[in-house]
Amino acid sequence: MSIEGSKSAGLGRRLRLGMVGGGRGAFIGAVHRIAARLDDRWELVAGALSSDPERGRASGADLLLRPDRIYDGAEAMARAERARADRIDAVSIVTPNDAHAAAARAFLEAGIHVICDKPLTTTRAEAEELARLADERGVIFAVTHNYTGYPLVRQARAMVASDAIGRVRVVQVEYAQEWLSTRLEETGQKQAAWRTDPKRSGPAGAVGDIGSHAFNLAEFVVGDEVRALAAELHTFVDGRPLDDNAHMMLRFRGGARGMLWCSQVAPGNENGLRLRVYGETGALEWEQETPNRLVHAPLGEPPRLIRRGGAGANEVAAAATRIPAGHPEGYLEGFAQLYTDIAEQITARIEGRPPSELSGQVPTVHDGVRGVRFIEAAVASSKADAAWTEL
Amino acid sequence: MSIEGSKSAGLGRRLRLGMVGGGRGAFIGAVHRIAARLDDRWELVAGALSSDPERGRASGADLLLRPDRIYDGAEAMARAERARADRIDAVSIVTPNDAHAAAARAFLEAGIHVICDKPLTTTRAEAEELARLADERGVIFAVTHNYTGYPLVRQARAMVASDAIGRVRVVQVEYAQEWLSTRLEETGQKQAAWRTDPKRSGPAGAVGDIGSHAFNLAEFVVGDEVRALAAELHTFVDGRPLDDNAHMMLRFRGGARGMLWCSQVAPGNENGLRLRVYGETGALEWEQETPNRLVHAPLGEPPRLIRRGGAGANEVAAAATRIPAGHPEGYLEGFAQLYTDIAEQITARIEGRPPSELSGQVPTVHDGVRGVRFIEAAVASSKADAAWTEL
Amino acid sequence: MSIEGSKSAGLGRRLRLGMVGGGRGAFIGAVHRIAARLDDRWELVAGALSSDPERGRASGADLLLRPDRIYDGAEAMARAERARADRIDAVSIVTPNDAHAAAARAFLEAGIHVICDKPLTTTRAEAEELARLADERGVIFAVTHNYTGYPLVRQARAMVASDAIGRVRVVQVEYAQEWLSTRLEETGQKQAAWRTDPKRSGPAGAVGDIGSHAFNLAEFVVGDEVRALAAELHTFVDGRPLDDNAHMMLRFRGGARGMLWCSQVAPGNENGLRLRVYGETGALEWEQETPNRLVHAPLGEPPRLIRRGGAGANEVAAAATRIPAGHPEGYLEGFAQLYTDIAEQITARIEGRPPSELSGQVPTVHDGVRGVRFIEAAVASSKADAAWTEL
Amino acid sequence: MSIEGSKSAGLGRRLRLGMVGGGRGAFIGAVHRIAARLDDRWELVAGALSSDPERGRASGADLLLRPDRIYDGAEAMARAERARADRIDAVSIVTPNDAHAAAARAFLEAGIHVICDKPLTTTRAEAEELARLADERGVIFAVTHNYTGYPLVRQARAMVASDAIGRVRVVQVEYAQEWLSTRLEETGQKQAAWRTDPKRSGPAGAVGDIGSHAFNLAEFVVGDEVRALAAELHTFVDGRPLDDNAHMMLRFRGGARGMLWCSQVAPGNENGLRLRVYGETGALEWEQETPNRLVHAPLGEPPRLIRRGGAGANEVAAAATRIPAGHPEGYLEGFAQLYTDIAEQITARIEGRPPSELSGQVPTVHDGVRGVRFIEAAVASSKADAAWTEL
Repeated sequence: MSIEGSKSAGLGRRLRLGMVGGGRGAFIGAVHRIAARLDDRWELVAGALSSDPERGRASGADLLLRPDRIYDGAEAMARAERARADRIDAVSIVTPNDAHAAAARAFLEAGIHVICDKPLTTTRAEAEELARLADERGVIFAVTHNYTGYPLVRQARAMVASDAIGRVRVVQVEYAQEWLSTRLEETGQKQAAWRTDPKRSGPAGAVGDIGSHAFNLAEFVVGDEVRALAAELHTFVDGRPLDDNAHMMLRFRGGARGMLWCSQVAPGNENGLRLRVYGETGALEWEQETPNRLVHAPLGEPPRLIRRGGAGANEVAAAATRIPAGHPEGYLEGFAQLYTDIAEQITARIEGRPPSELSGQVPTVHDGVRGVRFIEAAVASSKADAAWTEL
Repeated sequence: MSIEGSKSAGLGRRLRLGMVGGGRGAFIGAVHRIAARLDDRWELVAGALSSDPERGRASGADLLLRPDRIYDGAEAMARAERARADRIDAVSIVTPNDAHAAAARAFLEAGIHVICDKPLTTTRAEAEELARLADERGVIFAVTHNYTGYPLVRQARAMVASDAIGRVRVVQVEYAQEWLSTRLEETGQKQAAWRTDPKRSGPAGAVGDIGSHAFNLAEFVVGDEVRALAAELHTFVDGRPLDDNAHMMLRFRGGARGMLWCSQVAPGNENGLRLRVYGETGALEWEQETPNRLVHAPLGEPPRLIRRGGAGANEVAAAATRIPAGHPEGYLEGFAQLYTDIAEQITARIEGRPPSELSGQVPTVHDGVRGVRFIEAAVASSKADAAWTEL
Repeated sequence: MSIEGSKSAGLGRRLRLGMVGGGRGAFIGAVHRIAARLDDRWELVAGALSSDPERGRASGADLLLRPDRIYDGAEAMARAERARADRIDAVSIVTPNDAHAAAARAFLEAGIHVICDKPLTTTRAEAEELARLADERGVIFAVTHNYTGYPLVRQARAMVASDAIGRVRVVQVEYAQEWLSTRLEETGQKQAAWRTDPKRSGPAGAVGDIGSHAFNLAEFVVGDEVRALAAELHTFVDGRPLDDNAHMMLRFRGGARGMLWCSQVAPGNENGLRLRVYGETGALEWEQETPNRLVHAPLGEPPRLIRRGGAGANEVAAAATRIPAGHPEGYLEGFAQLYTDIAEQITARIEGRPPSELSGQVPTVHDGVRGVRFIEAAVASSKADAAWTEL
Repeated sequence: MSIEGSKSAGLGRRLRLGMVGGGRGAFIGAVHRIAARLDDRWELVAGALSSDPERGRASGADLLLRPDRIYDGAEAMARAERARADRIDAVSIVTPNDAHAAAARAFLEAGIHVICDKPLTTTRAEAEELARLADERGVIFAVTHNYTGYPLVRQARAMVASDAIGRVRVVQVEYAQEWLSTRLEETGQKQAAWRTDPKRSGPAGAVGDIGSHAFNLAEFVVGDEVRALAAELHTFVDGRPLDDNAHMMLRFRGGARGMLWCSQVAPGNENGLRLRVYGETGALEWEQETPNRLVHAPLGEPPRLIRRGGAGANEVAAAATRIPAGHPEGYLEGFAQLYTDIAEQITARIEGRPPSELSGQVPTVHDGVRGVRFIEAAVASSKADAAWTEL
């Protein structure tokens, strides 16, 4: 367990965070802010919080930002911050998908570390360009596939890696929601409007928004890449231009077979992200809505319930845990773990030392690229009547 | 609730049952016998219980059959029983799959009603011939897709039919087991040996044994047929000639999309048959291992837990229920329901009246034919790299 | 697993069963009949099925009894059966509680084995007299505390006995129902009418009907006796003469402490019988509504899910199991186990051999006496403002 | 849903928080700090973090406190802060129980609002004195019975108050843990050492630490007070001077009956706080380890699963919620809710307006007094062989 653990080990200050997007009425920006705050490694000091300058200023005031660090746009912010002695250590980009690439490019060019929401971009070309840039500049670039921050997701990954279930054979992953079962996008709901708009979301709907999370989770835990997929994307709600349900079959490089289902039209499901991994000698099952529990079923023995912080929880899980077993941690803590790990990476760089090994689990721009390739492959396969398509 | 309900309404005797297969060491035959006995509508009076005559005689003695009604084979039994005044009312065929067709044909030709285990046959031609014969002779022919006998499965079907969840959009069905995770067939385990032997099981392994159950359950509850499927069958255990895992995408005639997963190499799963049906206005979820519970999630309302016999259980469920809510019924009761419904059909025919409407839910030879077509389509699709294949 | 296992080992016939009570409209009689039939060790041949002779005859005809073995009362039946060469091997007494004693006495005196519903009698004096009579005559006398027939209840008992959880410290047992939350007894519901009538049920309501089950289950699994209890009985529904809710604290002879709650006014509960036993080195948890699951929590290790027939299930459980893991058995199978064990006891006596060791787990008349003493102690303690009262 | 909602509505700054206790190695202090930080209403600016001055200074430096606001003791801190223009708005007292009273008194006398961990004090006299002082001075005094901050606990309370389950009849509450199953206090574990030491914990062990939470939760949700209890406290681990298990029967003023079980020797339980409330027309069930779910069982209808933020969640729950349904919030968010509500109370006072109605749900010093009276009554009853004892 680590409460505010290694924070002040040397730096003697919190890291300075800027934010692009996340103004009044936005959802995910506020989540990023809580996540950054939770372990006390960051303070928010600057922002270009809205594409509407007035809203951006009001939002900045809400957050007690100093007026001179409230900006009208990402490019202006990158330029101005770069010039400051007390410039931000990193920026969080939390706009709709279509605005990620330009904003990220601006900060990369300013040499400022980037934390970007997923999917990384709306096209593969943009994603690959960002990865190239980040590598060239040596800038830290994290992509918030936040479910990788849950302690028991990390434990599952470590267990697979340490051969706890043998060679992986079958991977069942799904992410089911109900919220788009009706034409919510026509009611003025802001999230629904941009999520179902190809101009802002990119070429996929459910696949881009949540399928990409499921895909990332599966690859993260299995520790192997999907080689090819056969996908059927479908739109059930009349008039919606993007998919709201998708079924896929997966082939992993190592020989495992899998299925991925994502849906936004599945009544009764809120954020039903579930992963089941079956190996030669055992299995692991995890569900996002009860994230403090991981079932480990060793072949020939009774299934075991591993609980965050409890018996059977390993060191990887412990390192991502704040409070003892039985007091549930949730989504915000999992998200916070990414911020804490990124803080460690940045602090280590400032201090000229290697970062802790476990902080390296945060998804990078390269994972972001894979997410975009996944989306493009799924769309392409579906257009080809579910033909097997390489990633 | 109906305990030994309408049994004696007129006939004044139990129906006489014969059995082909099910001798010492067999599993499913004993299940059929308990199922037949449970509601007291049947008595077992004759049998050709084994392909090994000696074992057949010993098994018959175990079951207190009279020696003159213990037969060495199905054909001999069909001939002899046909000639008796007290001949059997129906025969249960519970042999390995490859022996179903010949036995069934013999009893059909003798005009004796047939109850046959699934899958109906190992080839589509045989299955269709049996269906034709049964129709021509006017013989009752039930196929024991036994999961349709669970009260809450029937309730789910009735709820879908009565528009409780609106038009069906997505169907997720799976049947996961762990028992063939290793090469059990080489240890002398009888079940494993014939289930993995194409000569006895037919062209599919997991798909034939349990995939066919999942398929039947989905069609039964949804009340619609699968039009086409794209399947990937796979064998994970070296040297096994049949599939032990299969993934499929499904397209229903009415426009619904679905996935089917069946596996016999999924550690931690015993008989993990699970069905989830998502419609425009709600969803239903059911799991075979906790069969007394059905979740109904009306869109926009909290999910409701319907329990067998409890509040929310409908008349269809009540008619298939023996004891009050909270005292669990299980697999044997669900199986018994088929026998009780078949007894009603036969009794009604003897009495010259129409059978009760609810007894018509028992799967027939035509459902058996669909099961065989499903198996053939899955195998064909998989050979064609998961190309969409019509059923 | 044992399907129709040792049935015909020598006797070459089914045992002959008679029944007192259980006519048309009764609930538990039909359960006993199914239970007797399920494993094919018994056939019902005689009955005094109702205190109303006409209903008794009609009920006997329903059940295909021969007219000369349908009796008007228990005494007449005991006399007549005793005189027959093909007399019944045992009688099941399934009347309301107040009629148990006289009926049991008649069959005991006729030397016929008795299977009696619980609670054994409405007074402790009667109960002790029956026990004395049974012992003197050497007659087998079973009391159907049926929950002891569940495989995993037996496994739990065996695990405690073999020190799997160390010395027992804390026992939490409860049996919660909702069915008497309103004045159901005034609606003509037969069960509710006699269960809430002190003349037919005896001095306690919920405590007698279901508290006695909870008590028996706790003692059965813990393998120790309750030494004293402090009880508060309460009636929540106006005008009801017997308790419909009770809370108790328990002290076991071996030093364990416990709580018992039983209620018939707990909405949402159907037959919520739950037992949790905590020892020095581990714990066991079991719930009647999901009886195929037993949680074993060894101290310092992750809790394990033991499933009937699956990994971790022991020989004691296996001996009480019909079908493989994952196909749920339920209430009727658990009840059937008692009948099968009693059949083994009687068969062994006929054959002049000791019965199988495991068949000795069936509760006897002495367990029935403890149940009646429990009821009397609870009533006495409650009248004394929950003073500790010895059993 | 409210993310950083009304924070800056007028004050234009974060509230200033001080802390007594909570230095290096402490558990609950860090929890309070995360809770204060989460919704961004507070900043920690001062502390007397340890009874060991050196450890206190080091801890303050860890937390980036300015050296002049790191104090050696509560009294010194109260005096110094009172004198500052930028003095703290409130102090959090998070020491072991025996140090609460003196610290609280010091800040009360300084007119500084107090947030105090529970149980409030180790004696009833001290508790009542603090309550009197707080009332006289008009100082806000909150006691962190933190489980009242969970959204669905508040929803449950509101549902009972609005008659959703009718008049309450039965209350079953328990708090089971396993962590003291062995003599952990002898291993140097700091928590275990003081929790089992009567000098630091007061007259009760499990009852004081977790029984008091269960008691508070029951009264909070039921909206009624316990009038009397009959308790049996027990120590299972040899040599431990305080109880590690307790059973109680409860009588509420309004006529409800209840049971309370708390244990620290129950293997398999981490923080198993569970509440079930049964009324005339329905029931509510909630478990702390899955806090985002509340079961509502209306009599005669299927139980409904209400999820935080989902369908059926009411306005009271929504007001205590940060993120949408299906993304779990946990212990820290529930704890944070108290801090946010206290911030609202203090801000309102600064602004000269009434606080929001919902912020009034935070337990006060008077709830703290009830907790101490509960502990004393339980100890007294147990000494009197579980005699009914008034609170």
